[in-house]
Amino acid sequence: MGSGVLDLLERHNGFFRDSLGFDFELKGICSRSQVRLDRFPGRAPLMTTHPMELAKHPDIDVILEVAGGEDEPKAWVEAAFAHKKHVITANKALLAKHGKDLFPLAEANGRFLLFEAAVGGGIPIIRTLQESFIANDIHGLACIINGTCNYILSEMTGKKLSFESALKAAQDLGYAEADPSFDIEGTDSAHKVALLASLCYGKYVDFSSMSVEGITTISAVDIQMAEEMGFAIKLLGIVSQDKRGIQANVYPALLEKRHQLATVDGVLNAVFVKTSAIGPILLTGAGAGKLPTASSVISDLVSLARQLATGNPQAQPMGFFSTRNRAELIPIDELETEFYLRLTAVDKPGVLAKVTAILGEEGISIRALVQKPEHDPEHVPVIFLTHATRNANVSKALKRIDVLDIIQAPTQVLRFYR
Amino acid sequence: MGSGVLDLLERHNGFFRDSLGFDFELKGICSRSQVRLDRFPGRAPLMTTHPMELAKHPDIDVILEVAGGEDEPKAWVEAAFAHKKHVITANKALLAKHGKDLFPLAEANGRFLLFEAAVGGGIPIIRTLQESFIANDIHGLACIINGTCNYILSEMTGKKLSFESALKAAQDLGYAEADPSFDIEGTDSAHKVALLASLCYGKYVDFSSMSVEGITTISAVDIQMAEEMGFAIKLLGIVSQDKRGIQANVYPALLEKRHQLATVDGVLNAVFVKTSAIGPILLTGAGAGKLPTASSVISDLVSLARQLATGNPQAQPMGFFSTRNRAELIPIDELETEFYLRLTAVDKPGVLAKVTAILGEEGISIRALVQKPEHDPEHVPVIFLTHATRNANVSKALKRIDVLDIIQAPTQVLRFYR
Repeated sequence: MGSGVLDLLERHNGFFRDSLGFDFELKGICSRSQVRLDRFPGRAPLMTTHPMELAKHPDIDVILEVAGGEDEPKAWVEAAFAHKKHVITANKALLAKHGKDLFPLAEANGRFLLFEAAVGGGIPIIRTLQESFIANDIHGLACIINGTCNYILSEMTGKKLSFESALKAAQDLGYAEADPSFDIEGTDSAHKVALLASLCYGKYVDFSSMSVEGITTISAVDIQMAEEMGFAIKLLGIVSQDKRGIQANVYPALLEKRHQLATVDGVLNAVFVKTSAIGPILLTGAGAGKLPTASSVISDLVSLARQLATGNPQAQPMGFFSTRNRAELIPIDELETEFYLRLTAVDKPGVLAKVTAILGEEGISIRALVQKPEHDPEHVPVIFLTHATRNANVSKALKRIDVLDIIQAPTQVLRFYR
Repeated sequence: MGSGVLDLLERHNGFFRDSLGFDFELKGICSRSQVRLDRFPGRAPLMTTHPMELAKHPDIDVILEVAGGEDEPKAWVEAAFAHKKHVITANKALLAKHGKDLFPLAEANGRFLLFEAAVGGGIPIIRTLQESFIANDIHGLACIINGTCNYILSEMTGKKLSFESALKAAQDLGYAEADPSFDIEGTDSAHKVALLASLCYGKYVDFSSMSVEGITTISAVDIQMAEEMGFAIKLLGIVSQDKRGIQANVYPALLEKRHQLATVDGVLNAVFVKTSAIGPILLTGAGAGKLPTASSVISDLVSLARQLATGNPQAQPMGFFSTRNRAELIPIDELETEFYLRLTAVDKPGVLAKVTAILGEEGISIRALVQKPEHDPEHVPVIFLTHATRNANVSKALKRIDVLDIIQAPTQVLRFYR
């Protein structure tokens, strides 16, 4: 990541100097690994394996933090603010875990903490929410914000792979880590969605209060059943606000194929925003990768320079959510949506009667029932599609259904996104 | 348009004041029509039918110009700059025709001329090019930037309508003017593309030097033939740069259906940018309409206020193309692309031989030949698809082909966009 930032800075600094009047001087490079550091011989006066050396250096104005990790970089960023430096970060995990401390610290020190690169890689969603949509209320937002998951689901759909094979393919291509849990369990998406939700509503959304589901339970049968019904399955970050409050969740959802997000495939990211004045608007592009992320880091650097060039850096903070103003999230139990329930049941008469009775008792109205023996003749998948219903009702019903002796495996629960 | 700006300003001014520290005061409203002006009783202290009264008013800092027209608003904007006001405009025709005078005038007076609303309505493409992509070279850009044309082509495709019926439908819905020529001949698209091209390459692209084609010659047969071959026809603004220079053109093009722009239907606009660091990136949304456009006007107003609040408004111009630096466009004759040629020929032996001979003599290599009698048994459409070839060669060949007595109507020429 750091090498991308370095490359773009060196490549475009002449333009920044000649056309914009900003001449950025690279004071130092830090990598905790001496081996990595040795890859950049002579590219900066100060080369160090000690981050604090940069964070505390008297001649440095801005720290570009692209290291990863959570607790270690927190200490560097704190030191940087204490030493009156601005910080630009690509580190969503850092902000998700420690943003509630770091944003106020930036403010208290009259310094900027910018993070365009932390969400959606090269997609300019932070600046767009902060500036372009400023005369809009945000009714809601849905995003495909983790390229690893989107790649896996796209491969499962396009090539009819199992989750395991698609994950393996993603790992072989470098799209998934050796330990992929951070991506496939939805954590990375949630880190980003917490930041987006905070910007949408001007209130700090704490990552830890979100409901987060990943894609590990999605099977080839689910993908294929969805396909046959005209839907794609995507891991979505979903944010909305109504009079009850703010919802911010991450879960795999069934999207109508003609929805603009349904055709966003592979490692692409996309953010779909429902705005009050503009209406729906979509931004799609590379959500990760060295250069896309570096591009956003450098665009933040230029924005910062514009701000500093005015001689009054504290005049206007560029973001406008306050960590003092905390969002109380509506729990996912209160979410109302349509559900896809795939039961694994023994092939006995009376199964459907028992299940439908429980669904009815819990106030869940059934929109459709689909049985597709061709997918698995031994364990015929039985799929219930429900009308919009409260998530809590579904949870309650499944607690009763999944303990029935006719049920052979936990019921797969997916939600629709409209 | 003005009423949308007024509504958004009134609706969000409390937020701007409380959260951003900007309290915008509406000093005056001008409409040249007294009847329209009377629709806003008491909403501003100064109500006038004389634009110059606002442009010269000593207490006004910013003029929001959303009137339309070219020469009249030029005079107001000039007066506004002379009286040290900033100008925010939604008027692409004004900028296309008079930008070469107005941008330098703004600069000479130390004032801003902002125009996010002039291109793509609510899509934040101007700010994105100016700020978010600042560490990228722009390899090229393709956009669907006129909702009227996109609606007509979508209707022709989806409902198999003729151009005339689709235009009528667009007029009935208010998507096309009574005199639609400005839209359907590509002029409006070209106005916007000139601005986009200027921002992509930091050089002033003069609208009048562009090659501009509209959609008036597109027939139902073309749409259907394209469909059958797996392509959609869209009116595109296309901008690119290579070592020979900059190209900026507007023409209807055949796009592979899986291209992200091919599924942008109806009145939606979209801008697809090929960037050096981020890769391809797409922005899609409402490209016109009262509120989307007003949203961009107000976002410019807030950006301007941020800049002015620094106490050093001239520190950084927000745009970065200079009208002193003029782009020499590569003429469309030099464009190299694949072509779709639909001939209307008599059904006689020897026709194909004559036509292919001429194409060969002009150095045009044929990729495919398609005859589809089912579309029109009397005048069987004969379609040649070419390999990539210079536009000039095709023009030359058609000058020879279209005068043959076996040819009954001018050959339809469309280009592919890859």
